[in-house]
Amino acid sequence: MASANCKRMARINSICRVSPIHFLFPFFALIFSANAMQAQESPLSYSIVIHGGAGGDPSKWSEDYRKERLDSLGKALDAGVEMLEAGKSALDVVEAAVRTMEDDPVFNAGRGCVLNEAGEHELDASIMDGRTLACGAVASVKTARHPVTLARKVMEQTRHVLLIGRGAEQFGLKAGVEQADADWFITDKKRDSWLRWKEGDKDASLHLPKSVKPGEEQLYLGTVGCVALDSSGNLAAATSTGGLMGKRWGRVGDSPIIGAGNYADNRCCAVSGTGVGEEFIRLSVARDIAARMQYGGQDLETAAAATIAELPDDAGGVIAIDSKGNIATPFNTPGMSRASANSAGLRSIELGK
Amino acid sequence: MASANCKRMARINSICRVSPIHFLFPFFALIFSANAMQAQESPLSYSIVIHGGAGGDPSKWSEDYRKERLDSLGKALDAGVEMLEAGKSALDVVEAAVRTMEDDPVFNAGRGCVLNEAGEHELDASIMDGRTLACGAVASVKTARHPVTLARKVMEQTRHVLLIGRGAEQFGLKAGVEQADADWFITDKKRDSWLRWKEGDKDASLHLPKSVKPGEEQLYLGTVGCVALDSSGNLAAATSTGGLMGKRWGRVGDSPIIGAGNYADNRCCAVSGTGVGEEFIRLSVARDIAARMQYGGQDLETAAAATIAELPDDAGGVIAIDSKGNIATPFNTPGMSRASANSAGLRSIELGK
Repeated sequence: MASANCKRMARINSICRVSPIHFLFPFFALIFSANAMQAQESPLSYSIVIHGGAGGDPSKWSEDYRKERLDSLGKALDAGVEMLEAGKSALDVVEAAVRTMEDDPVFNAGRGCVLNEAGEHELDASIMDGRTLACGAVASVKTARHPVTLARKVMEQTRHVLLIGRGAEQFGLKAGVEQADADWFITDKKRDSWLRWKEGDKDASLHLPKSVKPGEEQLYLGTVGCVALDSSGNLAAATSTGGLMGKRWGRVGDSPIIGAGNYADNRCCAVSGTGVGEEFIRLSVARDIAARMQYGGQDLETAAAATIAELPDDAGGVIAIDSKGNIATPFNTPGMSRASANSAGLRSIELGK
Repeated sequence: MASANCKRMARINSICRVSPIHFLFPFFALIFSANAMQAQESPLSYSIVIHGGAGGDPSKWSEDYRKERLDSLGKALDAGVEMLEAGKSALDVVEAAVRTMEDDPVFNAGRGCVLNEAGEHELDASIMDGRTLACGAVASVKTARHPVTLARKVMEQTRHVLLIGRGAEQFGLKAGVEQADADWFITDKKRDSWLRWKEGDKDASLHLPKSVKPGEEQLYLGTVGCVALDSSGNLAAATSTGGLMGKRWGRVGDSPIIGAGNYADNRCCAVSGTGVGEEFIRLSVARDIAARMQYGGQDLETAAAATIAELPDDAGGVIAIDSKGNIATPFNTPGMSRASANSAGLRSIELGK
């Protein structure tokens, strides 16, 4: 396994802008990085995008709710920006931004997640390091306060990529990740929306119940994610979700599937998705965007737009960053909550088109 | 969802050789297909490859065991060929060939699977229809005699792609898939090899125990898969496995991950993988081969070889078929059990290089 990692590292290092000397001489490395980036015509020392889910029509949301969501996005974005300005790694940043959103009941991830058919929480998350292609994911877990951190522990402390259910939870206990219970995860708002789903139109059990009025869809939606480029030129991506309201049969969507809802590779881009997970798995959406860049020579914006165009209407969207810090956020839903920032002063928080 | 499927079908039909008239006039369609295929310079009306797993060095296996494995591969291949000659769909064929191998205790799938840390069976499988990109998968299931059939039911009877654990089993009961218990799945041979693993070198818990002598590795290996091109020009892929001997924490490998261990798209190819699942997930191996063809214009052999070259040494291999029936079976292990046939008379069964 060690030699496998070495082989991978050697291959990736040969095409990215981080030299081993960085680890020995941080100060020298900083100057070297800056020069290298100028040579690549990129003035950006960092770039970050987060999302709080696609779906629903933000123009129909109440002003209070719009403000609440914009504030929450701003808070997670600022947490990430502060770390990037302090020189933290993209990997640390995407984990921290997603943790912030997992703790925020506004989003369908961690605290405030939607509930499955039985009225329970069942969480999925993943994380990927574009420098090494190391990745970790968990599906259908209930006891980790921050599923994204559990996913990172899978990446760093096991030989595995994907752990599920009770087994993943047992590993989390051993790895010392913070625990939480139903009282933490399940908020009154989401319990109420689950009761409405339960009493409502059962035929639409795995989509929005028909009783949901425009402007209330957000109670059923809100996967979160973050992609970032750091000052060493490394990319990372993280995604976390409570999945579909009323999901059953151990349904798992795209969020914990590397290549579907999450991908990062320094050679091309970092991507986090949100939407109808099944469609994202079918097309390997995150990997598809990376592949269009790698093999088709497309730029990030073209690649991301082309992949989203392949999805059925109203299926979702992605946030993506390339190795120069360029940003793309295409979606084919009425809205996608998202926020972007970079070292050139960009700061944008948006809900709709 | 219906309109999403229509959109997808329209897009895919526009580039594949099946016209709707096929369904109305089978005889006419057969002639039409043959002409269409000639126009594509392809004389093949069908093509099929199966695998019974990569890993271990077949040159060190006993003659009896080599013969047993060759016979088992031949049996599954013949089951597929007979169906293809009778005009059955690629989707039916890959399911049937994998079912045959799931019932055969020689392979690590269905009956004869390896056991997890607790000495239990825990099975994963997936299937994908290259005509529509419809797909289904199950992970960590114990009660379906044929996990690949459960995966197909997920594809055909739910809106989902991936169901896991107890939930998947409950769906299987509802869908009427044949049930089986530990007495069916766990053979004496695999129970013995698990005991040796259990008593052996715990540090190597998730690879082969050090006590395993060359020539005995096959007791710990043997994921199965099938890819096929049918006489209507449709591709399909299926994969099934018991995973890693001694696996723990709900570890899931690449077999049930669409894009990693399994993929099929009429526009390019069908792929089934076998090997160190984590590496296959990290690179989205099956989707990567398809993407090299779609976006990089590579032929099947070049694409499949290039993807396998990206894997760490001794990680595994794939079987793949393109839309003209060309076959590629690259692997970077000492051996990969595989068998191929096509309508031009090819019949090949191999274990090593």
